[in-house]
Amino acid sequence: MSTSTAAVAPLVLADVLPDGPPRLAPEVEEALVAAVGREHVLVGADVAGHADPFSFLGEATVVPAGVVLPGNVEEVRAVVRLAGEHRVPLWPVSRGRNYGYGGASPRVPGSVVVDLHRMDAVVEVDDETGYVVVEPGVSFLALAEHLRSTGSSLMPSVPDIGWGSVLGNALERGFGYTSHGDHSAFQCGMEVVLADGTLVRTGMGAKADSTAFALYKGGFGPSVDGLFFQSNLGIVTKIGVWLAPRPESTAVCMLTTPHDDDLAGLVDVLRPLMLEGTIQSNAVIGNAPVVASMVSPRAAWYDGPGLLPESALFAMNAAMGTGRWNARFALYGPASLVEARLDVVRAAVEAALPDASLRVTTYGRDVDPAEVHPADRAQLGIPSTDLIQMAAWRGGTPAHTDFSLVCPPTGADAVRQRDLLRARIQDEGFDYAGGFTLNARHAIALALVAFDRDDPADCARVAALFPALVADASAAGYAPYRSHPAFMDLVADQYDANDSALRRTVGRIKDALDPLGVLAPGKQGIWPGSASSRGGV
Amino acid sequence: MSTSTAAVAPLVLADVLPDGPPRLAPEVEEALVAAVGREHVLVGADVAGHADPFSFLGEATVVPAGVVLPGNVEEVRAVVRLAGEHRVPLWPVSRGRNYGYGGASPRVPGSVVVDLHRMDAVVEVDDETGYVVVEPGVSFLALAEHLRSTGSSLMPSVPDIGWGSVLGNALERGFGYTSHGDHSAFQCGMEVVLADGTLVRTGMGAKADSTAFALYKGGFGPSVDGLFFQSNLGIVTKIGVWLAPRPESTAVCMLTTPHDDDLAGLVDVLRPLMLEGTIQSNAVIGNAPVVASMVSPRAAWYDGPGLLPESALFAMNAAMGTGRWNARFALYGPASLVEARLDVVRAAVEAALPDASLRVTTYGRDVDPAEVHPADRAQLGIPSTDLIQMAAWRGGTPAHTDFSLVCPPTGADAVRQRDLLRARIQDEGFDYAGGFTLNARHAIALALVAFDRDDPADCARVAALFPALVADASAAGYAPYRSHPAFMDLVADQYDANDSALRRTVGRIKDALDPLGVLAPGKQGIWPGSASSRGGV
Repeated sequence: MSTSTAAVAPLVLADVLPDGPPRLAPEVEEALVAAVGREHVLVGADVAGHADPFSFLGEATVVPAGVVLPGNVEEVRAVVRLAGEHRVPLWPVSRGRNYGYGGASPRVPGSVVVDLHRMDAVVEVDDETGYVVVEPGVSFLALAEHLRSTGSSLMPSVPDIGWGSVLGNALERGFGYTSHGDHSAFQCGMEVVLADGTLVRTGMGAKADSTAFALYKGGFGPSVDGLFFQSNLGIVTKIGVWLAPRPESTAVCMLTTPHDDDLAGLVDVLRPLMLEGTIQSNAVIGNAPVVASMVSPRAAWYDGPGLLPESALFAMNAAMGTGRWNARFALYGPASLVEARLDVVRAAVEAALPDASLRVTTYGRDVDPAEVHPADRAQLGIPSTDLIQMAAWRGGTPAHTDFSLVCPPTGADAVRQRDLLRARIQDEGFDYAGGFTLNARHAIALALVAFDRDDPADCARVAALFPALVADASAAGYAPYRSHPAFMDLVADQYDANDSALRRTVGRIKDALDPLGVLAPGKQGIWPGSASSRGGV
Repeated sequence: MSTSTAAVAPLVLADVLPDGPPRLAPEVEEALVAAVGREHVLVGADVAGHADPFSFLGEATVVPAGVVLPGNVEEVRAVVRLAGEHRVPLWPVSRGRNYGYGGASPRVPGSVVVDLHRMDAVVEVDDETGYVVVEPGVSFLALAEHLRSTGSSLMPSVPDIGWGSVLGNALERGFGYTSHGDHSAFQCGMEVVLADGTLVRTGMGAKADSTAFALYKGGFGPSVDGLFFQSNLGIVTKIGVWLAPRPESTAVCMLTTPHDDDLAGLVDVLRPLMLEGTIQSNAVIGNAPVVASMVSPRAAWYDGPGLLPESALFAMNAAMGTGRWNARFALYGPASLVEARLDVVRAAVEAALPDASLRVTTYGRDVDPAEVHPADRAQLGIPSTDLIQMAAWRGGTPAHTDFSLVCPPTGADAVRQRDLLRARIQDEGFDYAGGFTLNARHAIALALVAFDRDDPADCARVAALFPALVADASAAGYAPYRSHPAFMDLVADQYDANDSALRRTVGRIKDALDPLGVLAPGKQGIWPGSASSRGGV
């Protein structure tokens, strides 16, 4: 495989191997049906729901050859063994709802999507020590409902849209907005099916009768859990997830600043409060179009040609009570402690950002979710699907893709990212609907690009925008941590230190654990045979 | 290799391969000297300092064939290549100060210890975002001194004894006692030399000019960092470590309970305070002999035959102001917030443990380390070597070994562990000097066994005690997370789920990354060739 950037342009997928046939061979279909039952194997027109729902690739959109829906771990093991036998590439998804990044769409044409959504058991809930064990099919909506209906004292952490898989989101390094918002960091204990059907339990779970499967990450010897994040080294069938106890009090804070230039100050006042533990959540920082797109279509603010004018931004802020930059974060704990946290936050904000306004809404432990302001739900761990409508921002057939860059959590970096992203995005004719998820030690710079899936010109601009953003960011020392499948090689190419030593190392592990290369070839730029016959990535 | 428990008795090392010759072959010595310089290769009597300082194995004590002390990454790469060429097993250590667990001692006779203590640069300190990057030779003492002398605002987290390596401690899953006490959890970014000399930078560091090497753990694609904990898959030459800002106020709390039966209540009152984020450190829970051994020899309390009598325990508590169980933990942050945290702690303790006493000492940001009570230093991130004297508890030639079990952080589990450990330890004629490091979601049950290194009877009892404790614990669903090299196979055997699938999987990765098996064969029970010629572990 070449690593030149030319080879990873989004429309060139035909030169990557192994591709399966565009349609499932009859003997493969038969074998899968024997393994999981007729109704759990989809072929032909029935696979359409597993292609990228927001594809910007036109005719090059990757469509799976089939979909298999195993109902339990033994069926997953049978499927991987069959795939090896028949040399069919698999593309495992938990629920396949990663819509801004390809949905359930495989990287390689001819793949069979392994859709795990039928495996939807909440296997264990432990209120005393704060964890659950879930299968891949458990959505955030389902977990929250399970906890509520069983009277659990635990609070889930949920991402923007609650229909996705708790397990899948953690594996893709997704995040929520509570004190336990860094979902991959709060995973503990895994069960994984390897390509040869070996069933591995990690960490303490490697002891058959362990009392600490989901309590202590380490175990004895090397930790392999990290290998299965954004990975094609195995299919994860269970994880432990640490959840916080529902606190006595939650204060959701909205910090609003009037000027575009306030961004640096906003970041630099919040980061130290996070580092010292006063603020326990991340802070979601968004500009006015981001906030507006959560509740309205673009046309409500501006219907003329070209980019959103300044006047539209002012109109948004006037109507919504927002500012040019808006940060939402939360404080948790006993009521007295939340008050003390809030006093510290207020003092810091007043000293650093005298023009800013801080609005606070406090919720008690047993607040009815229906009484929570929609914008505050994520900070309370209440899942919803409201934000699906952000894809409809520009009209047409709603679609969106996102761009997520890792950067240091400093005001100076935020300004660099804002300028870099805004310039390129506006060059391509899109509004800059952007912001940051700010954590104590890193920020994710986000740009949300809504487009009309049925407009070829829109799609072509999206397809051109992503590689341009990667190039701009990379030159400045930044890189994305996730990507649409079409750009996975491009992003992996940016991780180039020591002749791509990390990618080559993961390739060697890939060849050791999946020598036939059937699991998700190409995912995150890791291809089978990369350490041997392909001569290194 | 057999996995029967008979094969892993501590004195049976001769049947494991590959062993090197007991003395370094002249051509190997010559090659190493050419790579690192004459003065950095030790052989013959000079290697004695790299054997287990507290060995209880008598004549079976493993002595290295040589020691090599590379001074930089290129020399480490040269050493691993030479080891492959000459098929000499290496045993890398950072500073080799893991004294209770074998010190610098290799697992396999004839190994060459790769002592990295000369690589002692603090590569980077970033006060703004709270991290340092260190080489293996940086001790906790040196890091603290570096931060102080450069006026850094950061506070290190330090273990009980400060002479060890910051990097080595994190890799062995050691811990300290501040809000950043879980050292492996606060590692971010790694540089690793593989067996073939490949130099890998992990996570964001896999991008050559990344701005986020030590800031974001994830990167793009699978995370390999976990593979290098307690590992023989590579030699780690740099890590990023997250440090907390030195807080305005630190309140160190000592919670003392009068009765042996208070243990469950003590654990069950502290855990929820940790889960909700009120208490930010772990809690070190120790019984009276543990506390006494920190400041005095056993003979000061009891000089008769047999175990410490109850009267000695009462005398200790009366003299030291301690109780049967004593928990030390800390609160950090702005002074107002620490006060609010303390109020919550006080109320919880008063409600749950009316007989307990809570003593609090509060320190300001700029407290002189000399003014800090010795017992409070670890909670303030001030390293010392005071606790070395615990090894002298029983008199004779001081030595100790420790037993560390992972368990759920509940009162019921703590009581089970106490009873299990106490019974077996007392059966072997040792005092139960024990306790727990309690975290929000796990506890480590600790038993400290001091013995006379020059007393063969003492040594034989230690050698018998460990396997007996492992068997008792394992039957109850618990397992150690670390061990002396002599017991690594025994402990690995306890992680038996699905026909030891995790161990077999790590073995496959071992063979992929180190096919010649030169790196630390047998470490944590992972042997070269385990996936192929040895037919699986």
